[in-house]
Amino acid sequence: MPPTNSSSTNSLPQVNTQVLLAGRPVGMPTQENFHIVQTPLPEATPGKVLCRTIYLSLDPYMRGRMNAGRSYVEPVEVGQVMCGSTVGQVVALGPAGQESTGKMPVPLTGGTAVPQLRQGDLVLGYGGWQEYFLAEPGSLRKLDPAQGKLSWALGVLGMPGMTAYVGMLDIGQPKAGQTVVVSAAAGAVGSVAGQIAKLKGCRVVGSAGSDEKCQVVTGEFGFDACFNYKTTRPFAGLKKNCPSGIDVYFDNVGGVMLEAALRLINVGARIPLIGLISQYNATEFLPGPNLTPVLVRRATIKGMIVSDHADRQGDFLRDMSGWLREGKIRCRETIVDGLANAPRAFLGLFSGENVGKLLVKVGDDPTAH
Amino acid sequence: MPPTNSSSTNSLPQVNTQVLLAGRPVGMPTQENFHIVQTPLPEATPGKVLCRTIYLSLDPYMRGRMNAGRSYVEPVEVGQVMCGSTVGQVVALGPAGQESTGKMPVPLTGGTAVPQLRQGDLVLGYGGWQEYFLAEPGSLRKLDPAQGKLSWALGVLGMPGMTAYVGMLDIGQPKAGQTVVVSAAAGAVGSVAGQIAKLKGCRVVGSAGSDEKCQVVTGEFGFDACFNYKTTRPFAGLKKNCPSGIDVYFDNVGGVMLEAALRLINVGARIPLIGLISQYNATEFLPGPNLTPVLVRRATIKGMIVSDHADRQGDFLRDMSGWLREGKIRCRETIVDGLANAPRAFLGLFSGENVGKLLVKVGDDPTAH
Repeated sequence: MPPTNSSSTNSLPQVNTQVLLAGRPVGMPTQENFHIVQTPLPEATPGKVLCRTIYLSLDPYMRGRMNAGRSYVEPVEVGQVMCGSTVGQVVALGPAGQESTGKMPVPLTGGTAVPQLRQGDLVLGYGGWQEYFLAEPGSLRKLDPAQGKLSWALGVLGMPGMTAYVGMLDIGQPKAGQTVVVSAAAGAVGSVAGQIAKLKGCRVVGSAGSDEKCQVVTGEFGFDACFNYKTTRPFAGLKKNCPSGIDVYFDNVGGVMLEAALRLINVGARIPLIGLISQYNATEFLPGPNLTPVLVRRATIKGMIVSDHADRQGDFLRDMSGWLREGKIRCRETIVDGLANAPRAFLGLFSGENVGKLLVKVGDDPTAH
Repeated sequence: MPPTNSSSTNSLPQVNTQVLLAGRPVGMPTQENFHIVQTPLPEATPGKVLCRTIYLSLDPYMRGRMNAGRSYVEPVEVGQVMCGSTVGQVVALGPAGQESTGKMPVPLTGGTAVPQLRQGDLVLGYGGWQEYFLAEPGSLRKLDPAQGKLSWALGVLGMPGMTAYVGMLDIGQPKAGQTVVVSAAAGAVGSVAGQIAKLKGCRVVGSAGSDEKCQVVTGEFGFDACFNYKTTRPFAGLKKNCPSGIDVYFDNVGGVMLEAALRLINVGARIPLIGLISQYNATEFLPGPNLTPVLVRRATIKGMIVSDHADRQGDFLRDMSGWLREGKIRCRETIVDGLANAPRAFLGLFSGENVGKLLVKVGDDPTAH
């Protein structure tokens, strides 16, 4: 169905609610690191478009942007709007000017780039934690609601889905009959990565932070096994569930899980290093896993950032949308209502409160039934 | 020149001197872990050949074989002759019987397999720490002294040389202008690995355990820089000598060097994990390096055991013998005289007493001038 233009320029508010980085966290962030402000609604300047935010994506990588040091991209400055991918709707177009084709700060995997956007268009962008955002048309991708739920552009059909796809297929290279372990298996990336390995005929073992999550991982996502790392020591959980050793360890967490998995790897194992969420709030540079098994079993550890793999976007969108249509991949979302709840929801990422993709619903979704 | 048959069957001794594993070491081995015995000289049984040992190779991997646990091959049992690659000479052939083509326990990179060996032939084998060894012909490679010094079959033209070749070229993939770091740069593998990177147009920085070694590394092996890790902290030494970061870290040692190198890697860095000599005598499973830089800079750590890469042997022998002939690769050997000195020389590997390849001269070299 065509999107209804629920927010025409005529009904725009005067103010924009934004969540700013109030200060740099030391260790685990708190709500005090965020500051909610009301600022005047920006105007669509020449060559820019004004969008209202429908969904804001909350992702673990944002913790790194809160630090002063450069990670793989520049940090958010104190006083700046927190960064993040968003699904939005074009509410105003700036006066025609030179067409800008700005470089995207992160890859936007869903949608298509179009030369000309129109009011009411649904777009994927990098609008950040705010109700309205100004964007260069070249940084936006037009979304087609017929391809799936609008929010999927931030999850299974977006950056987390593509991370799972490239990380598992290109780096993990799972082969039928092999044992694949996925940490944070109930999360946005892990849940998809494990399902891809199942499609390839592997035995897939997950770890998650509660019995409820483990039930979702085996029941809904179809993993062969899943253990609760808060009640079962990782080495014991893996040893029991991986009697033939580990051929692929798709790591989202680092720390004790990574150490335990390395001790059980088979010759030629692949370890896509996707996330180290157990260490994102560390105040010191913690020691890592003993690498003796990596040498002795000739394994490969490979760090992966999805933005390096834009060449795989076409394959990803074709395969993943097909798998979703055929019911071969299932996805879960945890949707929090209202931008004011974004800080608390974000903090919950590090205590494992979400199942599947964590999103904030910032404004009306015109395609939701 | 043709080898002189300095030990014909007529002049064979009655006894064979052997070095046995007397007990399993805990931590750093001592001389008490070895036991030198005299046993009756074995007879060349049907289908076997008796060889006298000329050179015995001493390598860090042997420490792993002294432990009870399986590493990537079976351990040496207590009471057994210590294992090791050897250059020898055929002194007796067993009565003709079914031709045996035994599988080699480790790849022998030099020489050629021949259907029939003759008395006086010079061969590469896996004879172990003893003056005479019995072997299946299929486990031996005939050496051609015209190809280089006989001892090179255990070093620059043998397993250590091929480890350097495959590890640097296939895993390290050095590109002109990049910065390559090699630890244990004065050792048998590191000295060759660094020179290969120089041939590829890289800036090559080494670390070694004494100022004298560092002088050999820069003066003789042609590295751009080398620092003494016993007097300069690894992170400081690397930071100073790698102003453009590290693109390849060829690791022979693990531990503090690996941790320091990872902190300085560039995006897309490659880390061939060749040896972890700093940990071979550890009595606990030590923590390893923090892997955050591997994720953030999308690096690849790859464990490597040369026996997996037999397909590269032809390329290796062609290139390396060419480089040696043209004077593009220089090699050093530390040759210890007499089998009885093998235990002490082996222990010196872990305190860094050797420069280049460590060998024991067990018997006369008929090709030496």
